[in-house]
Amino acid sequence: MKLNVVGTSPPMKGSGEKTTGTAEYTVDMKLPGMLYAKILRSPHAHANIKSIDTSKALAHPGVKAVVTHKECRILYTVTHGSAREYGLDTKVRYYGDKVAAVAAVSEKAAEEALELIDVDYEVLPAVFDVEKAMEPNAPVVHPERDDCDGNILDVSVQEWGDVGEGFMKSDIVIEKRFTTQRVCHCAMEPHAMLASWDGDGNLTMWSSEQTAYMIRDSLAEALEMPRSKVRVIVPPYVGGGFGGKYESSEKIVLAVLARKAGRPVMLRLSREEVFHTTRTRSPCIFETKTGVMKDGTLVARYIKAIVDIGSYAWGAIISSRAASYMTLTYKCPHIKYEGYGVFTNTPPSGAMRGYTSTPIHYAMEAELDEIADTLGVDPSEFRLKNQLHVGDIIPVNGLPVSSSGLRECILRGREAIGWENRQKTKGVEGGAKKRGIGMACYSHYSPMLRSHERSVGNAVLKVNVDGSFHLLLGVPDIGQGLRTIMAQIAAEALGGRLDEIDVTLADTAVTPWGTTTAASRSTMETGGAVKMASEDMKNRLLELASNTLGVPSEDLEAVDSRVICVSNPDESMSFSELLNHPDVFHTGDNVIVTKATYNVPTFIPPYGAAFADVEVDTETGMVDVLRMVAASDIGRAIHPESVKGQLEGGIQMGIGYALTEELKLDPETGAPLNNNFLDYKLLRSLDMPEMEVILVEPVDPNSVYGVKGIGEMAVIPMAPAVRNAVYNATGAVVRDLPITMERLLKALKS
Amino acid sequence: MKLNVVGTSPPMKGSGEKTTGTAEYTVDMKLPGMLYAKILRSPHAHANIKSIDTSKALAHPGVKAVVTHKECRILYTVTHGSAREYGLDTKVRYYGDKVAAVAAVSEKAAEEALELIDVDYEVLPAVFDVEKAMEPNAPVVHPERDDCDGNILDVSVQEWGDVGEGFMKSDIVIEKRFTTQRVCHCAMEPHAMLASWDGDGNLTMWSSEQTAYMIRDSLAEALEMPRSKVRVIVPPYVGGGFGGKYESSEKIVLAVLARKAGRPVMLRLSREEVFHTTRTRSPCIFETKTGVMKDGTLVARYIKAIVDIGSYAWGAIISSRAASYMTLTYKCPHIKYEGYGVFTNTPPSGAMRGYTSTPIHYAMEAELDEIADTLGVDPSEFRLKNQLHVGDIIPVNGLPVSSSGLRECILRGREAIGWENRQKTKGVEGGAKKRGIGMACYSHYSPMLRSHERSVGNAVLKVNVDGSFHLLLGVPDIGQGLRTIMAQIAAEALGGRLDEIDVTLADTAVTPWGTTTAASRSTMETGGAVKMASEDMKNRLLELASNTLGVPSEDLEAVDSRVICVSNPDESMSFSELLNHPDVFHTGDNVIVTKATYNVPTFIPPYGAAFADVEVDTETGMVDVLRMVAASDIGRAIHPESVKGQLEGGIQMGIGYALTEELKLDPETGAPLNNNFLDYKLLRSLDMPEMEVILVEPVDPNSVYGVKGIGEMAVIPMAPAVRNAVYNATGAVVRDLPITMERLLKALKS
Repeated sequence: MKLNVVGTSPPMKGSGEKTTGTAEYTVDMKLPGMLYAKILRSPHAHANIKSIDTSKALAHPGVKAVVTHKECRILYTVTHGSAREYGLDTKVRYYGDKVAAVAAVSEKAAEEALELIDVDYEVLPAVFDVEKAMEPNAPVVHPERDDCDGNILDVSVQEWGDVGEGFMKSDIVIEKRFTTQRVCHCAMEPHAMLASWDGDGNLTMWSSEQTAYMIRDSLAEALEMPRSKVRVIVPPYVGGGFGGKYESSEKIVLAVLARKAGRPVMLRLSREEVFHTTRTRSPCIFETKTGVMKDGTLVARYIKAIVDIGSYAWGAIISSRAASYMTLTYKCPHIKYEGYGVFTNTPPSGAMRGYTSTPIHYAMEAELDEIADTLGVDPSEFRLKNQLHVGDIIPVNGLPVSSSGLRECILRGREAIGWENRQKTKGVEGGAKKRGIGMACYSHYSPMLRSHERSVGNAVLKVNVDGSFHLLLGVPDIGQGLRTIMAQIAAEALGGRLDEIDVTLADTAVTPWGTTTAASRSTMETGGAVKMASEDMKNRLLELASNTLGVPSEDLEAVDSRVICVSNPDESMSFSELLNHPDVFHTGDNVIVTKATYNVPTFIPPYGAAFADVEVDTETGMVDVLRMVAASDIGRAIHPESVKGQLEGGIQMGIGYALTEELKLDPETGAPLNNNFLDYKLLRSLDMPEMEVILVEPVDPNSVYGVKGIGEMAVIPMAPAVRNAVYNATGAVVRDLPITMERLLKALKS
Repeated sequence: MKLNVVGTSPPMKGSGEKTTGTAEYTVDMKLPGMLYAKILRSPHAHANIKSIDTSKALAHPGVKAVVTHKECRILYTVTHGSAREYGLDTKVRYYGDKVAAVAAVSEKAAEEALELIDVDYEVLPAVFDVEKAMEPNAPVVHPERDDCDGNILDVSVQEWGDVGEGFMKSDIVIEKRFTTQRVCHCAMEPHAMLASWDGDGNLTMWSSEQTAYMIRDSLAEALEMPRSKVRVIVPPYVGGGFGGKYESSEKIVLAVLARKAGRPVMLRLSREEVFHTTRTRSPCIFETKTGVMKDGTLVARYIKAIVDIGSYAWGAIISSRAASYMTLTYKCPHIKYEGYGVFTNTPPSGAMRGYTSTPIHYAMEAELDEIADTLGVDPSEFRLKNQLHVGDIIPVNGLPVSSSGLRECILRGREAIGWENRQKTKGVEGGAKKRGIGMACYSHYSPMLRSHERSVGNAVLKVNVDGSFHLLLGVPDIGQGLRTIMAQIAAEALGGRLDEIDVTLADTAVTPWGTTTAASRSTMETGGAVKMASEDMKNRLLELASNTLGVPSEDLEAVDSRVICVSNPDESMSFSELLNHPDVFHTGDNVIVTKATYNVPTFIPPYGAAFADVEVDTETGMVDVLRMVAASDIGRAIHPESVKGQLEGGIQMGIGYALTEELKLDPETGAPLNNNFLDYKLLRSLDMPEMEVILVEPVDPNSVYGVKGIGEMAVIPMAPAVRNAVYNATGAVVRDLPITMERLLKALKS
């Protein structure tokens, strides 16, 4: 198939606005009469609120409304039933939990008013350690919930084959314990949301989000309103999401506050609030046990996972879903997963890029290198030997692998990193600095990972009389370029011009239903609907042209906004000429709107391999990542440059996860210790290594133009690749992330 | 057919916002960084601009941009090809014509800057009188136009039968001359528009308009941009239109100004500007000649019309279309119309409620009373005798009258006004005050008036998972209640709940194409599409329910957002239950979007009669309207209370046209003399008479639920009814509107 637009890298839609600084984000919005909100947050990690006195705050001349649990003890649910939280409760469950909210004429006035609210707390014992939280006499974070066993919300046991039998059969069985830490998304744009009620009782909320529809549904249910009376709009520009922008529960508080104030109210979270109150990546403990044959054949894998979901249940899903990721990359007849989602009095954890996959991939891929070492085999050969091939059945969904570029990723990645130097560089004589090369593979989510899941994309397309188009989609662009990608698919499928396709996203009043821009699903899911709606549009145009030109529609094709007769290319007309033709114009036949619903037909597995070349200073424990190679099977790149950008971003996030990032809490109080960019060590551009991104495009036969998701995959293998490179360089075994200088020095010494 | 929602009068959508004052109009909008525009207007009625110096204005600290003809001599066209105008030209053609525009940080700064622009004019002779403008040596307003003969833009001669022969056959032939004046729409909300360019070169304009799409198309063509890059949004609230809100040409100037300023720019016209620069009702001269038989049978009617279209061509259409209105109400074998659209150096005229119909109806219906007097017959009987009946062919379109409530309107209106008192009250002895009763009939436009016209309505409808709906329409609600009416049609046709249907209107990026909210067409045209899209939605829901319930869809009906089995009403499920049913939910079958295009199938003639009871003080010439009755064949009222409201508004506008309203120009300079509400005599609520509105509902078989248009019809017969009542009261013949005290006194004396 010859493609004209798909596979090219034109300027991204919105790049003009972004580069000139005119792009308007949610934080920039202003409405007439708009007030500003601030939230009073708990100074205790666990306490009952005995009383709240807001009278002094209300007397502040700038204050228009205050809400507490008296107005706002409203249950708010997002994503799944167990992820629920009161807007404002009579209890606080972590340091920073919401206590009250103020609407005032300025953010300064609102902040002043927070100081004037008197809260009488009954401080309760708190638990910060997830294993302690599982003990019988631990303080219980949610005694009111009947779906918990103490602090254990979720127990998930999944098994394929029989691991007991597997371990019996194995030549070697290895047991390890890996831990991962609490990290933050660090999206450039802080969370911001603006609520406005009209005089007819309709609520409109603009919010920097990864989903309009889920927020709309959550608000409508919480407020007991029909969905038609709640409109959620995600503004065209969202400064990053990474999973952190749909679960935050301030929205229900803001809605109630704005209703009480009778004016639009804007809430912009401070960077400090974003760090520790808007979900974090769940800290995890993985106890792994793996059985292999001496020839390197994987026989049995068992992982027990303890997931610290923090004080609210948003992250609970990780525990049950993580099992899937044990089944996607390697053949292994016996697999068992046992996961626990456990409450603690810490900031709630939740979705983050590679949601349930990034932590468990770290454990699995780090463990593989230790096994390879034990077996004395090359870790890349070990992986190649065990990989799933096209046609192999994937245990979690019973579906065959429909395409795989994994082998090519490993081979090309090895070549690009200089894998042959791996042993040479290891422990170079004559200095404290050691070079090492490591790798890790991944697969991850795609729609239909579990075949009972719903994977529905929708698109509406309408044509203007000049042959330009408007595309309407329910999902937002969170900065990754969805608008451009979708317009490229439309331009390709209908034979139109990319720059004449306008895209409106994520407005529940006007766009068709769409799920989240999350889980690396949009290009596959919504892109499928865009292709269908565009093909329908093209066919309708060709049919009209067939009547007008007197040529059978099978003999017509659409290219560059023209209908062309294939057998006689001189015979052609522009879309504009067609749509203005009196026969077509007069009857309204030129007012074409197409709509498509697309179901992703099967699981489309993404694969990839990352390689890291590091230098370790064994005297200080400092790790310097010199070079990273990311080879990714992305099926087909719609916009190759943007895919590369996503992979480079994944490298940045992955190195941070491996080496520098962790949101630290005071072990006594649970207060955040580094919730700011000075103390939280995010990699800056100057910290970045040389990067090489390799796109492997096997073109999956079951997906739109062969695409696979990439948004999350970009980050998944990076941390274990770095960790394995450090291991390769030094032989020191660090199993806990991040690999701080202190930890590494300690390991080097032992 | 049993109707549940159509024909009821629930609270209008938006009434909460309007009554609480929270409704946001275009004038209320604010965008970050927004500037304000003001327009420098010509102090001469006719002049060449020899030079403009904007340097002092640009040096004003608040000024960000100035545009003149140097940037903005861009041809801007709306509605039809001959209606074109440069954004800013090198010439001014009326007192108040646009010369330059300034964008500044405040309206005050912009006004100050206007004072600093130096313009060197070469003043040209001007012509203000339309008949003088037709003379050979008159100053020519548009010498550059090659579609004009001097100042005559448009000559329209239309004839059915042979009037020459008709006059020969007639027993009596009567010739008269009637004139009508320049009046203004006086919408509550002044014209306001806000232009914003983004960094990618896309233009968004919010404007208080009667059409989004026509403005979008005009701007895109003038700016030579694809339509997908120009978005026009009419905000949900528009404070009245009456025909005055789509032709104003400031929009192209504002677009260019905002592009130059690089910031959003708001233009709010002052009330004074609205009065004399935003189109007015065309002043007309009608020379009538009518032949009748002694028994009162109409034989031949001829009208020569001279329409003063002012300085730009927006009003030209009146001349060619007015002929139609001679053919709709009464049988007459010989009809001829000869019309001239003529430029003068006066404010441009254009569309106004009953565009081409209100003035000519005045002449025709006033003439009928004079003929009835000559014949000595009762004017109501004269009309009843000559009226067209169902099945009679309408000359202008060759289509049969599909329904007519005219007879019922006349009979019920006569009864309501107390027609039997007409002769009794006439010239009551013993005082200066004379009572009189008059009447007038009308028909008017409907889509397909001329059968080659395009009449296309569109609707898109989508359902939420809770069974609430969003309706998307391309046409705006200009205050008359379109949102409610359309939601009522949808609720009726799909079996849903009115308050759970959200309506989004007139946003070219997201709504389907729609024409203007004008020409009394929306309920018929767009309403037809709403009904079709809603029926399609209902059928799809019933089909899904048929699968789910295992009941044939023919046995299912939808009522109050539930699907009910007709043969077993106990078997039912709510829309919400259906749409959340796993079979329907999982596949995305619950994401339903329907779209319909509707062509009005034939001409749907509206009819009606108005009656006035007046008291004339023969000493002062003061006319006091005591009571008005408006009996209107509206086919079927979707929302009876809103129809009554439109008719009452029509009475207000009609009495003003008859007695008090006229925009006066200085005969020397062409400057407006009363462009404000102090000096322009609009009727206030305290000036209003007692009113009775009678809705006659013959339910036309060819239209949606039988409806006919009413928006314009409401005003058409009012002025001639008042005029005929004055004639009845006093016998004084006034043929020129308005019937001022001075004119009436003069007539009483002669």
